[in-house]
Amino acid sequence: MIRVGLLGAGRIGRIHGGNVAGSGKARLVAVADAVPEAAQALAQQFGAKTADVDAIVGATDIDAVLICSPTDTHADLIEASVKAGKAVFCEKPVDLSSARIRDCLAIVEACGKPLMIGFNRRFDPSFAEAERRIRAGEIGAVEMVTILSRDPSPPPPSYVARSGGLFRDMMIHDLDMARFLLGEEPVEVHAVGACLVDPGIGEAGDVDTAAVLLKTVSGKIAQISNSRRATYGYDQRFEVHGSKGMVRAQNVPLTTVEIATEAGFRTDPALPFFLERYAQAYRAEFAHFLDAVETGRSPSPSGQDGLKAQLLADAATEAHRTGRPVRLGG
Amino acid sequence: MIRVGLLGAGRIGRIHGGNVAGSGKARLVAVADAVPEAAQALAQQFGAKTADVDAIVGATDIDAVLICSPTDTHADLIEASVKAGKAVFCEKPVDLSSARIRDCLAIVEACGKPLMIGFNRRFDPSFAEAERRIRAGEIGAVEMVTILSRDPSPPPPSYVARSGGLFRDMMIHDLDMARFLLGEEPVEVHAVGACLVDPGIGEAGDVDTAAVLLKTVSGKIAQISNSRRATYGYDQRFEVHGSKGMVRAQNVPLTTVEIATEAGFRTDPALPFFLERYAQAYRAEFAHFLDAVETGRSPSPSGQDGLKAQLLADAATEAHRTGRPVRLGG
Amino acid sequence: MIRVGLLGAGRIGRIHGGNVAGSGKARLVAVADAVPEAAQALAQQFGAKTADVDAIVGATDIDAVLICSPTDTHADLIEASVKAGKAVFCEKPVDLSSARIRDCLAIVEACGKPLMIGFNRRFDPSFAEAERRIRAGEIGAVEMVTILSRDPSPPPPSYVARSGGLFRDMMIHDLDMARFLLGEEPVEVHAVGACLVDPGIGEAGDVDTAAVLLKTVSGKIAQISNSRRATYGYDQRFEVHGSKGMVRAQNVPLTTVEIATEAGFRTDPALPFFLERYAQAYRAEFAHFLDAVETGRSPSPSGQDGLKAQLLADAATEAHRTGRPVRLGG
Amino acid sequence: MIRVGLLGAGRIGRIHGGNVAGSGKARLVAVADAVPEAAQALAQQFGAKTADVDAIVGATDIDAVLICSPTDTHADLIEASVKAGKAVFCEKPVDLSSARIRDCLAIVEACGKPLMIGFNRRFDPSFAEAERRIRAGEIGAVEMVTILSRDPSPPPPSYVARSGGLFRDMMIHDLDMARFLLGEEPVEVHAVGACLVDPGIGEAGDVDTAAVLLKTVSGKIAQISNSRRATYGYDQRFEVHGSKGMVRAQNVPLTTVEIATEAGFRTDPALPFFLERYAQAYRAEFAHFLDAVETGRSPSPSGQDGLKAQLLADAATEAHRTGRPVRLGG
Repeated sequence: MIRVGLLGAGRIGRIHGGNVAGSGKARLVAVADAVPEAAQALAQQFGAKTADVDAIVGATDIDAVLICSPTDTHADLIEASVKAGKAVFCEKPVDLSSARIRDCLAIVEACGKPLMIGFNRRFDPSFAEAERRIRAGEIGAVEMVTILSRDPSPPPPSYVARSGGLFRDMMIHDLDMARFLLGEEPVEVHAVGACLVDPGIGEAGDVDTAAVLLKTVSGKIAQISNSRRATYGYDQRFEVHGSKGMVRAQNVPLTTVEIATEAGFRTDPALPFFLERYAQAYRAEFAHFLDAVETGRSPSPSGQDGLKAQLLADAATEAHRTGRPVRLGG
Repeated sequence: MIRVGLLGAGRIGRIHGGNVAGSGKARLVAVADAVPEAAQALAQQFGAKTADVDAIVGATDIDAVLICSPTDTHADLIEASVKAGKAVFCEKPVDLSSARIRDCLAIVEACGKPLMIGFNRRFDPSFAEAERRIRAGEIGAVEMVTILSRDPSPPPPSYVARSGGLFRDMMIHDLDMARFLLGEEPVEVHAVGACLVDPGIGEAGDVDTAAVLLKTVSGKIAQISNSRRATYGYDQRFEVHGSKGMVRAQNVPLTTVEIATEAGFRTDPALPFFLERYAQAYRAEFAHFLDAVETGRSPSPSGQDGLKAQLLADAATEAHRTGRPVRLGG
Repeated sequence: MIRVGLLGAGRIGRIHGGNVAGSGKARLVAVADAVPEAAQALAQQFGAKTADVDAIVGATDIDAVLICSPTDTHADLIEASVKAGKAVFCEKPVDLSSARIRDCLAIVEACGKPLMIGFNRRFDPSFAEAERRIRAGEIGAVEMVTILSRDPSPPPPSYVARSGGLFRDMMIHDLDMARFLLGEEPVEVHAVGACLVDPGIGEAGDVDTAAVLLKTVSGKIAQISNSRRATYGYDQRFEVHGSKGMVRAQNVPLTTVEIATEAGFRTDPALPFFLERYAQAYRAEFAHFLDAVETGRSPSPSGQDGLKAQLLADAATEAHRTGRPVRLGG
Repeated sequence: MIRVGLLGAGRIGRIHGGNVAGSGKARLVAVADAVPEAAQALAQQFGAKTADVDAIVGATDIDAVLICSPTDTHADLIEASVKAGKAVFCEKPVDLSSARIRDCLAIVEACGKPLMIGFNRRFDPSFAEAERRIRAGEIGAVEMVTILSRDPSPPPPSYVARSGGLFRDMMIHDLDMARFLLGEEPVEVHAVGACLVDPGIGEAGDVDTAAVLLKTVSGKIAQISNSRRATYGYDQRFEVHGSKGMVRAQNVPLTTVEIATEAGFRTDPALPFFLERYAQAYRAEFAHFLDAVETGRSPSPSGQDGLKAQLLADAATEAHRTGRPVRLGG
């Protein structure tokens, strides 16, 4: 049994907390949260205790910490945790500053402890299976990747103002998926964006609708589109074209019911948001982390994956700001 | 160029008339119809002449006749045509009486001229391809066939009264498809029926909703369901289960447009009725007839196929009437 | 917290045991099984104790029992449990003998304790939603129900010999679904069956492929087909036609991945078997039972539902045996 | 009856020739082609005569000409035809030079005769229906358009060298569709391209894989991707997102057959190429032209539509060449 401490008992913390208990291989030992009631409720549910962050990071009866606290605490907590000998799972991103990420990863490397970044989508059963088939050669050499990601509704402008902007807050997941699917680093980033959903987002200095074009050294192309609006559920799809064919992963409908009337054939909307859509992904993600901790293998996505996605998000932000493509080292 | 005479210029006659011209291998020479204006209009459209039925049957410059006249004239016209040395294509059925069909087929056989019966569905591109894959062994040994056929709306009760009843008028197509797909003769027929769509049909002594269970000697099973009502287009589907898998043929939607809103995902209704759904089938059917005439090979479905479907329709009618299954010789 | 005793820690018992713990509203108190290790393992996993059947049935600190033991113990355990004041959830069937079921239900009624029968399919999210829409009138008056149910592979002939036969062992679920969807009692049952999958099943006196036709008093029709073989996953579907349209519930694929090559477009097989397909159904089923216990409302499906499905299975067995339809009181 | 002269009896000329005859409202009078046999064959098939180009353009018994000759003859033939009082349908493009197109359109305008450009895709039944629903407001205000177009196999490099490049030769159709669907002029064009399919295309100075990002003044975004390779049929799809939902138009499969085995569920490839996919579109396109000629209404797409698509193709070519976005007047 791997003994787990949880830092942060908010929405995402509660998901991971439940998955610890459900894994059959780990035990939730302690929970910390700035809101004591939140920590208390989660701890009770799974027979854990509450503690403050420092106590969990320093505890000798804890093997691994899950960092689910606000973004601006991630890098510090990662550093403290690896220094204390803990294996670390951290929600994305390590930091909004890529310089800060680099410093943090240097310390992680020096400590030699595993760090896994929570790009949950890689563990979606459909996305993971599609990637597996690509790597198995079923569509030949990858040529073009198209990723679509639309939230059901926009976040409040107050959130947007602190988020780092759509490219760093939302599209970073898709940029990670692009790397995952392309199997090659993008070296050229074009971006367009607009504020079409909520004028308040524009007033907060951000966009709510955006598209990016990526190109790799060998000429592979990726298209990403994002919107803060989708009426028919949380829209998360991609399709990948290769020399021998195409593979795509679709949304999951609420049910498989289909109704036919004079108006035609109607099926259900997609699952409403990430909690429903990625419930299985979160379980598989945590299982992968546990497996890495048990076996000593490096977890994936790694801290470097977190850094590279952040650099692409920075490049997209810059490309959008200047209206000109950004070239990267690759 | 095969020279064709057309007996009957109604709805189905006009379809075949157009397909003669479009075939590139046949020429429409003469058209007969009880309504002179109908014959005239169709003849003009394709550069043919009008003539009476006897003149067409007896013409020396005509190689083949297409019988698209009312059902009660079919057997007589088949006999007259084969006696006059013509190749014959006849819309189903040869007759509502199986005794009359047997007599007619005996004369056809004695004359040695080709007779093809218009079970158009065998030539639907999807249905034909499904059958081809079954025969190619893609689903292994056939075990169960399920056929569904629903008209968009009921015919007038006056039509129903003269039709021979739903099993002979409508389900006969599905009974032919069951034979086509099973690859074996049914020997047991169970039937249930009800009048759920139009009480006038019940008053005319018929049902508008029915289902049949068939079983062959080797134990293969077929399910057929019929209704005189479908709100979402003409519904014509089947699925066939075998030892290695399943093959099915679906409806064709009006367009491939899909719309997604809060109400879910909506696609188009199926094509509205047989003229649209089976337009390609009618062309392929006529091409097959022409090919048989040219090569001297026996056309299929044959007169015997027409007889066997009729005997199954008779059995279903009887099974429904008595509430007890009917056994057939197979 | 409702305190639950579990009788039977086999495959289905373990599912229900896990759902007790996961419900958040009930606690697993004690587990009994003829195999002590099975009871022990399940009890430990959820912090329960082991006990023998009589102790659980008679315990004063247990509110409800879940009967997941072999079929031939169900009726006795139901009777003992309701006499001891317990609410009872029992896996289907109450008994293979409808006379025994009637006696048992009389005792249940006399004791006035809730009894729910485990027809899990009614709680499948897609099936339940389809039924909800039917009852809401979205397809108008129901006219025809078609249910298809295919297991991935046949059980061993030794199992078949004790099972009561395909109609009672397998099709009973579909007969219950037919009642659920028709909203009316069938009064006429036609059946055909064959042994096409495993000759050993035939030697054990049973069929492995079967189809049934049902008709209700008002003329509604249901078609059911069963097979002990499906290569492409566990096949569980239905479609229901009404005066205004059609509703259907489809299978759930392993993933939403689609691959396109020269061979066409390929999607995943269906979920492999009932544990995967009905995982959500079992959770919803238990939640319904808990809700009934808490509120005092009668659970559904009831003991009477269990009896009526059994009577239909008896009728289908008889119809198949005699080759003649069986009429029921309705 | 509108009397039609056909200039060019190649692949596309034969399609239009057949549609003239099939329209029921027009008659093919004369056919010209540099290859006399081609003109002769087509003329015979439809009872027309052959003539040289000048004779057809100048004929007094011809109302409309269809220009299906090589691209470098289009502008001259348009000018000569409108000067001679003919209504003109011209295959895209008017010319590879936008300056030449402007000059030509000035003459067309001066002559006051109708000119329609053959962007056939606007008339695809699914594409046209999707656009109709967008204009009817079914998805609210358009926000993002994604168009995908993949040819089954690359053209020979010799063709590519004379084609004006992928953006002018192939993507011009998608650029026209983007304008059609956006309902607004793009003002910003980003492009990436690569040679991934056939090195010979790269040696000929072109790309075979490309993607473009467009943005309109109001911030609407379009993504287009093209490839000269698709193994699963001719791939022509789009999806359009708006404030209230999404509409998409899919490919048309060869048949509706679906086969299920241990490998999953498999459906047919898409129709193989444009002749099959756009057969209905060509008929509808010609019907629209005839209707414009009869009624005197301006046909659409117009010469200006042809010019605007060409300017976008020029911009994409330039954006790809320089690696920097191109701004347009809008």
